[in-house]
Amino acid sequence: MFIIFYYTYIEIGKHLYFSALGTNHRCFQGDSLWGQHCDCAEHDLPKDRAISRLQEELYRLQEKKQPPKSSLSTIFVITPTYARLVQKAELTRLSQTFLHVPQLHWILVEDSPRKTPLVSNFLMKSGLTYTHLNVPTAKERKLQEGDPSWLKPRGVEQRNEGLRWLREDRKTEPGDNGQQGVVYFADDDNTYSLQLFEEMRSTQRVSVWPVGLVGGMKFESPVVEGGKVVRFHTGWRPSRPFPMDMAGFAVSLRLVLANPDACFDGEAPMGFLESSLLKGLVTADELEPKADNCTKVLVWHTRTEKPKMKREEALQVQGLGSDPAVEV
Amino acid sequence: MFIIFYYTYIEIGKHLYFSALGTNHRCFQGDSLWGQHCDCAEHDLPKDRAISRLQEELYRLQEKKQPPKSSLSTIFVITPTYARLVQKAELTRLSQTFLHVPQLHWILVEDSPRKTPLVSNFLMKSGLTYTHLNVPTAKERKLQEGDPSWLKPRGVEQRNEGLRWLREDRKTEPGDNGQQGVVYFADDDNTYSLQLFEEMRSTQRVSVWPVGLVGGMKFESPVVEGGKVVRFHTGWRPSRPFPMDMAGFAVSLRLVLANPDACFDGEAPMGFLESSLLKGLVTADELEPKADNCTKVLVWHTRTEKPKMKREEALQVQGLGSDPAVEV
Repeated sequence: MFIIFYYTYIEIGKHLYFSALGTNHRCFQGDSLWGQHCDCAEHDLPKDRAISRLQEELYRLQEKKQPPKSSLSTIFVITPTYARLVQKAELTRLSQTFLHVPQLHWILVEDSPRKTPLVSNFLMKSGLTYTHLNVPTAKERKLQEGDPSWLKPRGVEQRNEGLRWLREDRKTEPGDNGQQGVVYFADDDNTYSLQLFEEMRSTQRVSVWPVGLVGGMKFESPVVEGGKVVRFHTGWRPSRPFPMDMAGFAVSLRLVLANPDACFDGEAPMGFLESSLLKGLVTADELEPKADNCTKVLVWHTRTEKPKMKREEALQVQGLGSDPAVEV
Repeated sequence: MFIIFYYTYIEIGKHLYFSALGTNHRCFQGDSLWGQHCDCAEHDLPKDRAISRLQEELYRLQEKKQPPKSSLSTIFVITPTYARLVQKAELTRLSQTFLHVPQLHWILVEDSPRKTPLVSNFLMKSGLTYTHLNVPTAKERKLQEGDPSWLKPRGVEQRNEGLRWLREDRKTEPGDNGQQGVVYFADDDNTYSLQLFEEMRSTQRVSVWPVGLVGGMKFESPVVEGGKVVRFHTGWRPSRPFPMDMAGFAVSLRLVLANPDACFDGEAPMGFLESSLLKGLVTADELEPKADNCTKVLVWHTRTEKPKMKREEALQVQGLGSDPAVEV
């Protein structure tokens, strides 16, 4: 729905822009920016020249702001998120990354029985094109306080909810345009270079690249020979069907739609979650290596420390805790 | 030097923009964007209307892109950084934040006897206005492997080197313009909202605001009554002269220049580092509260986990470690 508004906005923008041009002569190509003369004889009156110059500069700026729809695939980023002390901080820096990426649509899925005001307000002010969803993790699958983070995979239901929404939403967008796009699963604590998004934008089926600081390694990566992925550099069970981190691949929207049952299996053994989706979509020899044949690290599996609240708790006992009305 | 290029760019932009306006009547305020009529009787000819509309839209876009120099103080951000596994990741997301902030000059100071290729290359490609410095921490002041992070303050020499550079550089910028600016100390692992920078831009002497997730608290903050800072909400030694985190204040460049000896004291007791600078610059009752009278958290003291390298080390023993030629 949001994407419809977005397209509508671009369409309106385009319409208004060309309305403004009206029937005036356009001379963008030959007429260089400001101060130089255009060879064209049709508009040598001062006002015509002023119009032409202004149009040109406007065109240049508009071009930068709104790259033509047809040339850029939308990147749908599915991010599971859950309430915790660092949540707003993490979402803040992630949104700042995404704001630099043209034609990005953020699907943020809360692990919660309802949409929280913190996330709702945050998204509203973010300046991003987004869809806000929520689904709670089933109780038996939820990590308990004190569990090690690897015990149960986190974000499974939320990523699947993002896929469900995409499949539902794209039904209403017939034809080629509605199916063009790339799907990426971006956790809210990782670090993403801007180049990563331009690498994944051309994904045909499933594209892959190295991920830094993951799995007890400096990086894990597909190993590429002759342009093909031939094996994986990983510190653990390289025999898994797709021994890759969630941050290390993107899937074309077309492939997601063509395989309506492909999803993440929350019951998959540890380390097999990524494989549970990918094995329903692609074979290893079809993988498309990006990031200079998988020789560049463009994404890092960073983890943020859980802040200690010892002094806060001590002060709360005395009735002197931080004002709960202040959102952190 | 970089800042000169930047100013020149804005000057050229402004010149070109006003050249384009020429002698035409300007009617930005009353004439609403596209499609509605302007009340002004001076330009009811179609071409005049077209010019007015184009100018207005152009003005709007240019305003966004290039705020006029006079209205914006430069924010000089001094960031100490040191080589570690997550360094490039941290600098990457920090640079993405800064790229959104107009008129920001990043002074990045490496804790190193020489400038490293990683940081040099990173800055070169960052798209930011920057100054790259380096100074190694004296051996006796350096944290050793396994020391708790609070044992010795980190980044002292580096922040002082940033101040030294500013004082030296501003000498060559005579007059009011060279002294206008704001100095902020931004560590490379914190999280900064974009609004924070607009809050600090108007700093007259020293401005202050809350910091989230710091000192074992949900947030620490100056407490404001009647527009004045009257005390501090903190979990530890509120009697310190300035019980604030490094991320919680900014200083006007003028004040830094007027007090050439003010700097951070690496021998200050734990928790007194911020005070060691501020007590040479300002009194507590002169502090300027920002962020809605210190009721909004716009910066978070996030800390990134040190990645475990157990599998990497095991593989390296077998000669199967990650390719050291790949920069992480």
